[in-house]
Amino acid sequence: MAGNTFGTLFKLTTFGESHGKAIGGVLDGCPSGIILDMEAIQNDLDRRKPGQSAIVTQRKEPDNVVFYSGIFEGRTTGTPIGFAIYNTNQKSKDYSHIKDSYRPSHADYVYDKKYGFRDYRGGGRSSARETASRVVAGAIAKQFLNEISIQAYVSQVGSLRLEKPYSELDLKLTESNAVRCPDPETAANMESYIKEIRKEGDTVGGIISCVIKNVPVGLGEPVFDKLHADLGKAMLSINAVKGFEYGSGFEGVKMKGSVHNDQYKADGSTITNNSGGVQGGISNGMDIYFNVAFKPVATVIQSYETIDKDGNMVKAQGKGRHDPCVVPRAVPIVEAMAALVLADFTLLNRTIKL
Amino acid sequence: MAGNTFGTLFKLTTFGESHGKAIGGVLDGCPSGIILDMEAIQNDLDRRKPGQSAIVTQRKEPDNVVFYSGIFEGRTTGTPIGFAIYNTNQKSKDYSHIKDSYRPSHADYVYDKKYGFRDYRGGGRSSARETASRVVAGAIAKQFLNEISIQAYVSQVGSLRLEKPYSELDLKLTESNAVRCPDPETAANMESYIKEIRKEGDTVGGIISCVIKNVPVGLGEPVFDKLHADLGKAMLSINAVKGFEYGSGFEGVKMKGSVHNDQYKADGSTITNNSGGVQGGISNGMDIYFNVAFKPVATVIQSYETIDKDGNMVKAQGKGRHDPCVVPRAVPIVEAMAALVLADFTLLNRTIKL
Amino acid sequence: MAGNTFGTLFKLTTFGESHGKAIGGVLDGCPSGIILDMEAIQNDLDRRKPGQSAIVTQRKEPDNVVFYSGIFEGRTTGTPIGFAIYNTNQKSKDYSHIKDSYRPSHADYVYDKKYGFRDYRGGGRSSARETASRVVAGAIAKQFLNEISIQAYVSQVGSLRLEKPYSELDLKLTESNAVRCPDPETAANMESYIKEIRKEGDTVGGIISCVIKNVPVGLGEPVFDKLHADLGKAMLSINAVKGFEYGSGFEGVKMKGSVHNDQYKADGSTITNNSGGVQGGISNGMDIYFNVAFKPVATVIQSYETIDKDGNMVKAQGKGRHDPCVVPRAVPIVEAMAALVLADFTLLNRTIKL
Amino acid sequence: MAGNTFGTLFKLTTFGESHGKAIGGVLDGCPSGIILDMEAIQNDLDRRKPGQSAIVTQRKEPDNVVFYSGIFEGRTTGTPIGFAIYNTNQKSKDYSHIKDSYRPSHADYVYDKKYGFRDYRGGGRSSARETASRVVAGAIAKQFLNEISIQAYVSQVGSLRLEKPYSELDLKLTESNAVRCPDPETAANMESYIKEIRKEGDTVGGIISCVIKNVPVGLGEPVFDKLHADLGKAMLSINAVKGFEYGSGFEGVKMKGSVHNDQYKADGSTITNNSGGVQGGISNGMDIYFNVAFKPVATVIQSYETIDKDGNMVKAQGKGRHDPCVVPRAVPIVEAMAALVLADFTLLNRTIKL
Repeated sequence: MAGNTFGTLFKLTTFGESHGKAIGGVLDGCPSGIILDMEAIQNDLDRRKPGQSAIVTQRKEPDNVVFYSGIFEGRTTGTPIGFAIYNTNQKSKDYSHIKDSYRPSHADYVYDKKYGFRDYRGGGRSSARETASRVVAGAIAKQFLNEISIQAYVSQVGSLRLEKPYSELDLKLTESNAVRCPDPETAANMESYIKEIRKEGDTVGGIISCVIKNVPVGLGEPVFDKLHADLGKAMLSINAVKGFEYGSGFEGVKMKGSVHNDQYKADGSTITNNSGGVQGGISNGMDIYFNVAFKPVATVIQSYETIDKDGNMVKAQGKGRHDPCVVPRAVPIVEAMAALVLADFTLLNRTIKL
Repeated sequence: MAGNTFGTLFKLTTFGESHGKAIGGVLDGCPSGIILDMEAIQNDLDRRKPGQSAIVTQRKEPDNVVFYSGIFEGRTTGTPIGFAIYNTNQKSKDYSHIKDSYRPSHADYVYDKKYGFRDYRGGGRSSARETASRVVAGAIAKQFLNEISIQAYVSQVGSLRLEKPYSELDLKLTESNAVRCPDPETAANMESYIKEIRKEGDTVGGIISCVIKNVPVGLGEPVFDKLHADLGKAMLSINAVKGFEYGSGFEGVKMKGSVHNDQYKADGSTITNNSGGVQGGISNGMDIYFNVAFKPVATVIQSYETIDKDGNMVKAQGKGRHDPCVVPRAVPIVEAMAALVLADFTLLNRTIKL
Repeated sequence: MAGNTFGTLFKLTTFGESHGKAIGGVLDGCPSGIILDMEAIQNDLDRRKPGQSAIVTQRKEPDNVVFYSGIFEGRTTGTPIGFAIYNTNQKSKDYSHIKDSYRPSHADYVYDKKYGFRDYRGGGRSSARETASRVVAGAIAKQFLNEISIQAYVSQVGSLRLEKPYSELDLKLTESNAVRCPDPETAANMESYIKEIRKEGDTVGGIISCVIKNVPVGLGEPVFDKLHADLGKAMLSINAVKGFEYGSGFEGVKMKGSVHNDQYKADGSTITNNSGGVQGGISNGMDIYFNVAFKPVATVIQSYETIDKDGNMVKAQGKGRHDPCVVPRAVPIVEAMAALVLADFTLLNRTIKL
Repeated sequence: MAGNTFGTLFKLTTFGESHGKAIGGVLDGCPSGIILDMEAIQNDLDRRKPGQSAIVTQRKEPDNVVFYSGIFEGRTTGTPIGFAIYNTNQKSKDYSHIKDSYRPSHADYVYDKKYGFRDYRGGGRSSARETASRVVAGAIAKQFLNEISIQAYVSQVGSLRLEKPYSELDLKLTESNAVRCPDPETAANMESYIKEIRKEGDTVGGIISCVIKNVPVGLGEPVFDKLHADLGKAMLSINAVKGFEYGSGFEGVKMKGSVHNDQYKADGSTITNNSGGVQGGISNGMDIYFNVAFKPVATVIQSYETIDKDGNMVKAQGKGRHDPCVVPRAVPIVEAMAALVLADFTLLNRTIKL
């Protein structure tokens, strides 16, 4: 249980360091008979990949996935789907600035302490490059889920907040701009702000919102494996995430119960949806929506003080091509993790009744 | 994997409905040789139990735990610790108002849809009464953790917010008032407000903050089982929780990286602690702190409209003795779940190096 | 993962020491809607209980099960089924002969070494009394499986072997004698032999055979969780078991492939069944049959030499009421474990296809 | 839980079909800091590979492993070890004889029924080629276990049985002949017999024995995860295995308890070792030894009758290059699975005491 597996039945195990030979994974438990749309998988990878727009890191990595198994004549066979994405960009780097010293708010220090040493190249296993494997598996999960739609978008960059609720937005516009904010005006402001931040050699955080529609009633398991608890874990497992809230979230604590309660309509749907589509840990058929908070990227292109592995204070300089703000590229990752959770609970829910 | 087990090595499985014969659990994987302080276990149960103060439900349930196994001559044996808490209060209730209709924002509807029928008495398995079993196991986990201290407290009730950070509070005052807010003045305001809300037959939400000190470096597993991801899942699995954030949390998204980054001191500690004691999913030795958002209790003592199981709109009336605000009693539950997570990762961390 | 949980979806966790307050368990993942036949559960417990006949231990333990949860109005609710069997016979025993010294071929020594100390009363957790909890859960699994029939019987006691294959036996006669051997003549010989052995204060081993009929095609998961691999683990986890074989088993190694291969008939069934109902780890619809070898009970009513916990050689004397041969009482345990395996794979098999 | 993962902490997940792009796996939970001997890993692969001697299949597959991650500067990093073995031999085969019809005693039929269709090329996922991935992970486990020695050897081919117990054999001779039987005379007989069988186009079964030395006291978890239960499952998960016995095994059932019991010596070791190094599911420090029964390979080079997927009786002809007897090549597989079990229990045993 060293932490590289996610899911109970629809189960992803990932491997790989940022600058090793390859990253990849094994998706076990994916049902047989899914006719895979390979372009859709690559499309989600492309939404995550570096170099896709002017406001993300300018590294060039094609992120092409190679499938080794589990697919035959275009369909999933029910056996494990092994896949890899080669690290084409991993050579001849200069890591002298991170080999022996610890970058602030990175995982360098804790990996060294925990494991005794670490693959320091590009962050090794702690690099967000690992999430490409999640996107592959999530894209397959989406195809399994079929009628359930999962759409994430950027709702905040720094203090720039999209105030409209998702119901007033045209989520189809999400992919129309580099920020992945479905409100064009806000998107433009966010884009300008990110460019400004980048010029400073600095970074900024943001929030990704996600909406899941057409969820059947009954997904999620009491008591510990509540649907929103596993969604929360899924999101918090993404690099740089600091918070998760669903439905009324942190704002909901101020409300009175008489206002917060979602009144039923005759068909079992509810008039309001403060519950965020989940009651008692189980989906109730209403839209599921949640917010995920991302901290500012730790790598800033500035000089800083830190310690080396012998405990000496040293001066260092951030360099390389990094994201000034992680949220535009993290949108498909949020969707992928949501898809993995829903796929798992969909399978589990088949086993509940006589 | 029907969701009633928590943890990988230090593993709690709970059972029981609110108005069945008993609730209880099995704690498996608890190391041998812990000299158990039974009073400390009962004390945590008493902090959670109904009827303990004027601002919580006035139901009387003694919540005495009976241990069946796993303890011999006062020490844990390494074998599973089976325990039960009898439901002494479960008889001769009138459930006619919930048997055939669905209380808004409760789990009644989804249980019926998921399982085909439900034990409707007092909410059945979805009742927060289940959390008493977690408190028992968490109290044992605390004794295993020994030098790690876990202290939760109420930091918000409705819009009444304790603005001071935990470092400026005397957390020993937490138990000095019925609200469990360590700031006496704020506590008094919260208490008045809760009483007022109760008079209205209404309820209100709140936030519990938690601080964990003396955590060794190295707890938490990459990639999916990050320390904060499992803490988040643990908290989100508690009834009525709608959000979780740690360290800088949702506010942190507004910060620039150059400000958010925690600079190291020569001893490996950091000057600031926006990371909240966790970097890359692994504890770095600094204090871990996080917030948990609780929605207002769904049971309001008011009349309401809802549907019955045949889809007819019906009128109903909330009644019984319920909590106007759940956070004062949820403080030991937050601590218990945090203790279970830390105990599990403490054991896992023993297996990491050659 | 301290080893007290069995199953992935249909999941039993047991607790309890032989002479603590109670033994019991939690059965999680049992589907909702099973109308439980409580008499059938008690009947299986009675088949396992001490004192049931002249050839088993004469201890008196009623072994009545108390259910705490998961059952409402006679049906399973889909929530965890908590249960306990009280140890009514546990007091005022004299354990001086085992407290500080180690009985040969018992678990006393290894428990002390592994855990640092042990609950020595009656063998503690290593006592076969624990298997009563398995019988409870297995009896529920049988009711879930419904049309699949599971019948175990004694096929060997010491060197007395029932040579006929199961297909030539009337398995309904199994319960007609104390040995649980369906061949009356062999049963009588076995019974005489066991009585003789008991008079010597000695014990003897035996073999239990088990036949499972009406299994649908498709149960079992490749690669590691092959149906027969999990059946084997289930059987080997029963106290005193030393071997497991299915289908042609150890004898099959002598056969040529051209003879061993099971030729198909047009309906997909096979003419012979050397495969024992399982091919490639997956049930093929033919009868599953297997043998389980039990060693002689370690407690002999004789004097013996052993060591105490300080490594001194000491003399000791076996005493108490023990089974001269364990197989008659182990028949329902074998069935219970088989039922748990099949129930788990039945649920898993629902998740395999799109 | 689709069955492609083995182990709790030292955890192997495998993927791959016989004639897809590659087979491989992810080994998660391998402790950091192991200096890997790559030659030793390849050596175990070579012991398993086709074409290594005159009595095994003459297919040519180099079986070179490529590591993608988890190793840095020659040492394990504690992160998942991803690896692959390319299928170099997979093209331009003629599968017309197995595409639409079912080979007797193969997994063709059950895969089709379970998953709806199958990758029929070379047996797909059910091919024993998958075990190469186990050998890779097992070779790493051996290096982690270090002082524990695991030695398997062939003790029976058809009716030719090596009667001497392991203690009277020089196990270093195991690799001195193609059969992997440490008794040269018996080995020669076995080799002749296998050649004869091959000439007939037939196959025969066999038994592999395994001895594990220098095991510390304390490995194995009660109740369900007994050391020998997990060893048994590990062995039964290997293709073609029909039985498992350890210590006195099936023969032990005939013994009396007074004879079977292993008397302690002052140092905690025992005079006899009928227990096979395991008592109550926990290693006692004595040698662990067990037998694994393999059925004759199902593919015979003869004509046979079978059914096609529409239920028509058809004639077919076995062809290709297959093993006349699987046990010589299965020796390193048995060792690998034993190593995985012991590595897992070694890690688990670190978490047992305060």
